[in-house]
Amino acid sequence: MAGKTGLVISAHAADFVWRCGGAIALHQSRGIDMTVVCLSFGERGESAKLWKQGGYTLDQVKDARKAEAQAAADALGCADIRFMDLGDYPLHLDRDDKDALVDILREVQPGFILTHSQRDPYNTDHAYTYALTIECRMIAQAWGHNPGQTVLGAPQVYQFEPHQTEQMGWVPDTFLDISDVWDKKRAAIECMQGQEHLWDYYTNVAQNRGNHFRRNSGGQAGGRKATHAEGFQSVFPRCVDAL
Amino acid sequence: MAGKTGLVISAHAADFVWRCGGAIALHQSRGIDMTVVCLSFGERGESAKLWKQGGYTLDQVKDARKAEAQAAADALGCADIRFMDLGDYPLHLDRDDKDALVDILREVQPGFILTHSQRDPYNTDHAYTYALTIECRMIAQAWGHNPGQTVLGAPQVYQFEPHQTEQMGWVPDTFLDISDVWDKKRAAIECMQGQEHLWDYYTNVAQNRGNHFRRNSGGQAGGRKATHAEGFQSVFPRCVDAL
Amino acid sequence: MAGKTGLVISAHAADFVWRCGGAIALHQSRGIDMTVVCLSFGERGESAKLWKQGGYTLDQVKDARKAEAQAAADALGCADIRFMDLGDYPLHLDRDDKDALVDILREVQPGFILTHSQRDPYNTDHAYTYALTIECRMIAQAWGHNPGQTVLGAPQVYQFEPHQTEQMGWVPDTFLDISDVWDKKRAAIECMQGQEHLWDYYTNVAQNRGNHFRRNSGGQAGGRKATHAEGFQSVFPRCVDAL
Amino acid sequence: MAGKTGLVISAHAADFVWRCGGAIALHQSRGIDMTVVCLSFGERGESAKLWKQGGYTLDQVKDARKAEAQAAADALGCADIRFMDLGDYPLHLDRDDKDALVDILREVQPGFILTHSQRDPYNTDHAYTYALTIECRMIAQAWGHNPGQTVLGAPQVYQFEPHQTEQMGWVPDTFLDISDVWDKKRAAIECMQGQEHLWDYYTNVAQNRGNHFRRNSGGQAGGRKATHAEGFQSVFPRCVDAL
Amino acid sequence: MAGKTGLVISAHAADFVWRCGGAIALHQSRGIDMTVVCLSFGERGESAKLWKQGGYTLDQVKDARKAEAQAAADALGCADIRFMDLGDYPLHLDRDDKDALVDILREVQPGFILTHSQRDPYNTDHAYTYALTIECRMIAQAWGHNPGQTVLGAPQVYQFEPHQTEQMGWVPDTFLDISDVWDKKRAAIECMQGQEHLWDYYTNVAQNRGNHFRRNSGGQAGGRKATHAEGFQSVFPRCVDAL
Amino acid sequence: MAGKTGLVISAHAADFVWRCGGAIALHQSRGIDMTVVCLSFGERGESAKLWKQGGYTLDQVKDARKAEAQAAADALGCADIRFMDLGDYPLHLDRDDKDALVDILREVQPGFILTHSQRDPYNTDHAYTYALTIECRMIAQAWGHNPGQTVLGAPQVYQFEPHQTEQMGWVPDTFLDISDVWDKKRAAIECMQGQEHLWDYYTNVAQNRGNHFRRNSGGQAGGRKATHAEGFQSVFPRCVDAL
Repeated sequence: MAGKTGLVISAHAADFVWRCGGAIALHQSRGIDMTVVCLSFGERGESAKLWKQGGYTLDQVKDARKAEAQAAADALGCADIRFMDLGDYPLHLDRDDKDALVDILREVQPGFILTHSQRDPYNTDHAYTYALTIECRMIAQAWGHNPGQTVLGAPQVYQFEPHQTEQMGWVPDTFLDISDVWDKKRAAIECMQGQEHLWDYYTNVAQNRGNHFRRNSGGQAGGRKATHAEGFQSVFPRCVDAL
Repeated sequence: MAGKTGLVISAHAADFVWRCGGAIALHQSRGIDMTVVCLSFGERGESAKLWKQGGYTLDQVKDARKAEAQAAADALGCADIRFMDLGDYPLHLDRDDKDALVDILREVQPGFILTHSQRDPYNTDHAYTYALTIECRMIAQAWGHNPGQTVLGAPQVYQFEPHQTEQMGWVPDTFLDISDVWDKKRAAIECMQGQEHLWDYYTNVAQNRGNHFRRNSGGQAGGRKATHAEGFQSVFPRCVDAL
Repeated sequence: MAGKTGLVISAHAADFVWRCGGAIALHQSRGIDMTVVCLSFGERGESAKLWKQGGYTLDQVKDARKAEAQAAADALGCADIRFMDLGDYPLHLDRDDKDALVDILREVQPGFILTHSQRDPYNTDHAYTYALTIECRMIAQAWGHNPGQTVLGAPQVYQFEPHQTEQMGWVPDTFLDISDVWDKKRAAIECMQGQEHLWDYYTNVAQNRGNHFRRNSGGQAGGRKATHAEGFQSVFPRCVDAL
Repeated sequence: MAGKTGLVISAHAADFVWRCGGAIALHQSRGIDMTVVCLSFGERGESAKLWKQGGYTLDQVKDARKAEAQAAADALGCADIRFMDLGDYPLHLDRDDKDALVDILREVQPGFILTHSQRDPYNTDHAYTYALTIECRMIAQAWGHNPGQTVLGAPQVYQFEPHQTEQMGWVPDTFLDISDVWDKKRAAIECMQGQEHLWDYYTNVAQNRGNHFRRNSGGQAGGRKATHAEGFQSVFPRCVDAL
Repeated sequence: MAGKTGLVISAHAADFVWRCGGAIALHQSRGIDMTVVCLSFGERGESAKLWKQGGYTLDQVKDARKAEAQAAADALGCADIRFMDLGDYPLHLDRDDKDALVDILREVQPGFILTHSQRDPYNTDHAYTYALTIECRMIAQAWGHNPGQTVLGAPQVYQFEPHQTEQMGWVPDTFLDISDVWDKKRAAIECMQGQEHLWDYYTNVAQNRGNHFRRNSGGQAGGRKATHAEGFQSVFPRCVDAL
Repeated sequence: MAGKTGLVISAHAADFVWRCGGAIALHQSRGIDMTVVCLSFGERGESAKLWKQGGYTLDQVKDARKAEAQAAADALGCADIRFMDLGDYPLHLDRDDKDALVDILREVQPGFILTHSQRDPYNTDHAYTYALTIECRMIAQAWGHNPGQTVLGAPQVYQFEPHQTEQMGWVPDTFLDISDVWDKKRAAIECMQGQEHLWDYYTNVAQNRGNHFRRNSGGQAGGRKATHAEGFQSVFPRCVDAL
């Protein structure tokens, strides 16, 4: 189902690392270019460590977060990461901001899109990003929006794994084997110096999703020996030639 | 994801025709052998036309239904159709019947299974068949059930399209392009002489699912020109190497 | 949508009183004959008062419950109440019992059926009765079940109001104005000597459903002045000539 | 339950035709005046055919869409169609726009309202229109909003049939027999020159909903012989005098 | 689980009385200070009685509502009620208004928060208030929002009981015994002169929730003899030392 | 809410270890006696390692599983583990078996019950055990079931954590801090020699639930430093004296 490029829409600078770093590294390693859009740096809401240290200005926090995210993208082999600097807690896009995101959608022409889950009562920026992605995908498909540009097709939207999955109502329908690129994902994770308390957490997640991959690909009767995996929930049905 | 064989578990003799005749013909045409198991003939509940004519015994109705189902399987290119004759309205399997179905699961070793939707307030035989399929899949996976037999892996279970989809809570996540085998499916449909009122209904369904296939594979920006399709809802997550 | 008769399928002897006594009295008062089937007397599970008094045999408890239910039916103007005496906590019907219920469905030919909610984690007899009703409705529709009998049409099934509605996932889509027959319902309620702790509870329910009736029929801009109402959740879509 | 007028709130100029053209024609034919409000022309998002031809300005596209919608309303016998020209993909109403819609609600005093489904991941304008309708209905009921105006009662809101119903979570609870006015609906459909690919699709839908009408009004035991129908999902409970 | 203070966020001036007046009085009586924030007075949408009388200006209606709410807070023993006067039908907060609410959250440092249900198709102000509460809770937790202020912890959010619970999808998971403070709640209820039609309604609710409390704390085998209770639905999981 | 004893109902011999070993050890360490009922040994379905080794009879497999479960109970400090030996894959209880379980419920008089999740498409024994627990709880509450015995009150039922939580629709509402007894749980886990592939999996789960405990008890603003936790989903509302 995948096209030749993929697009990640990440509310805050670190989200793409924990939630789909493996997918980024894996596709990139196979020649599918991945573009990561960070709508904000998570400068206010996800940089507690720096704020607790004190002495930082908002711009300095942004810079620190940007450097970490850039390093993580490098570790994943992703050459195209973009920072829209739209603010967080709460994140908000006005009409022009949305148009800028639509421009990216049309430029990248992704075969698939990765973004946040539809619900997140802990973090409304995440749910907002999901809704925004769905809205901008629609606008990008409109022949009358900036006539003359190439319109967007109908790329699948995958919701990547949120924190506390059950509270989000997130149910994965796709497990991706990231065993081959796990080292890259762990390296990217370790770039996030401000959130060291999550390193082992997401290592555990990747290992346990590996168990799910083995179980669902055959289990004790011959499942594939994936060591690490990522889970995704599709928004749209997929179109196939065989079951 | 598909293996080298597929298994259809159909509550009544005609269900497999309307609901996944295209999938049967398509996979069969590609060298994937399909086995159809009809748990009953639908002799009491889905043979109103014959009963209204009068003069039929229960066995005669079964024979008529069996002949239609056999002809439909032939039209679809399916050489392996089995009739378990377990009764309908209501359908009920005791422990030995379930073991017989488990034997078939282990014999066929399907790469995927097609059966009814989880809910059907109009027809409890359908929901019963879904529950039965899930239960027998589990038994067939147990190493301690008839030790020595080859156990079943972890085949996907697809719920095929029920009548009045919305009332069932059935949501398709997979559209299968059956354009190339539509003629075979229509031919199989026309074998069901007792339910002529459904011929055009399921032709409409196939055409409209074709529209959904086109829309979801790219829409007006370049969706694939499927003329007919079938929809399915997966029970389990799928395991993939790329998104 | 209503036909000329209605059928109530009540798990225990008192359920029909609290949950649809108003509907019974109202339709009866308009010439629509109502038949009430009590699958059990609730002799084990809903007769705590008698058991606490002590000195009763199971048959004596059944007799006491039967007398109360009969008196309640009389108070509601319902001449046809039937006791199947199938046991409670748990209620269970074998194939012959189901056939007996199917016979009643075909005999009564109800325009609509009233029964329990689909879910009840407090009382599995209630959920069992719902499932049973759906199954027997299907059997009664089968032309091949006892050919020659008049088959059942497609009567609506209404789930009447359970205790602790929210825990059941029960959502009413229909409010019935029972103001004119409230006195009869209260009289029937007072026949249930063994459950006096519920008299005021269900009076409160009827008053508050009256508020819902007023609110949904126009509210402060002119809702109808119902004083008491009952709520129901439909299982099937309804067929209409106008919205 | 119906009042003397009905109101349709349509996100784009063509929605009302596919989704409730039959309801419009039917009620109109019975003396219930229907008002259609088109919030936008669907000029950017649902006019691909014109944009592909090229050479059109936005205003010209709007004009073409308006002419088609006007012709369709005429074909349905609807004399009151209003175009608010609020833009599409995305549709957005500010406070003044909402007040204008509230004014219409109070002017028309509809007995029932028809609008889009609550969810639509393909088209956020549709879900937005649903939310907007619910909000403006509430405002129109407020005695303190423009005191002196006649406030709105509590009209039912019906969600009409979306495209790909299952993906929307839309579940019809009401089927309306539109057999008598099917010719008018087909004529209105054929007014939509820009979306010819949907003509047969929605003809199939109407035929299959006719099957559902027959099945749910009695089936093979005597269902009514509707040839075409439309489905709707109610938002609020209904208030009745009999079941 | 409770902290030393509690916060109520009420869309309109009267909501806190019907929906959690008992919780306010109970905690206050135990030395846990409760703060009530009324986002609006309900001046346009919930003051029909005054508008029907005529002769009132908007400010006079606000004053009347404020006086009632203040009297109710006094009756409940709540010394801290705040009126933000943000308008109703529809309620809307801009960024500055949200910041003001965040300031209150950080000032009060509530151990738990009480607010409206997530859904309410009758009243979008209620659902808006829920979403707003979730959003502002997140902002108040952000170390980078007004650095130097004490950030908010992770207080539970309870959705208090809406009108027509089932239509909201509200399911209580917590019943609070308010028997000891029922007299105070009834006194507060009687302060709401403009909505006398709801006095007995919410008395019925409290009595019936008392029944639920008794039933779920042991039932006929020894449930506690609560006469009145309130129900709440938690948004987040709770953290415990014992089951 | 807890009473003086707790009851675990485990479909197979090992389930109680992975899913609530911490809760058992914790309550036991506080003087609350825990009783574990293993309905089967998981001899057919969850003993693949032994069957693959070959040379075992069914009774030998049962013995091996029993020894492991007994050792695990010892490690958790649980002195009361009972094996009903009712068979697995599929598990089935007839009326007498249910009565035996009811006898245990009445004997133990648990303050709370721990059992499987309501849904499990991978393992119907688990869902069956949930349904069974709910049914037997109801029977045990009936005053007319074995009159003279002490009836059961209304103990909470907690669904413990299933494998692949999201596929089960399981949503935890309660996190229990098991940091103090983690060593005991790990020791019990290591008793399960036949399922070594799950040791680290459930260690990961416990660590990540510890993260959830910290996050929900205050997060970076002061959450409690639990290192390990278990999650549970309540079936019934809880009755409280304070929020």
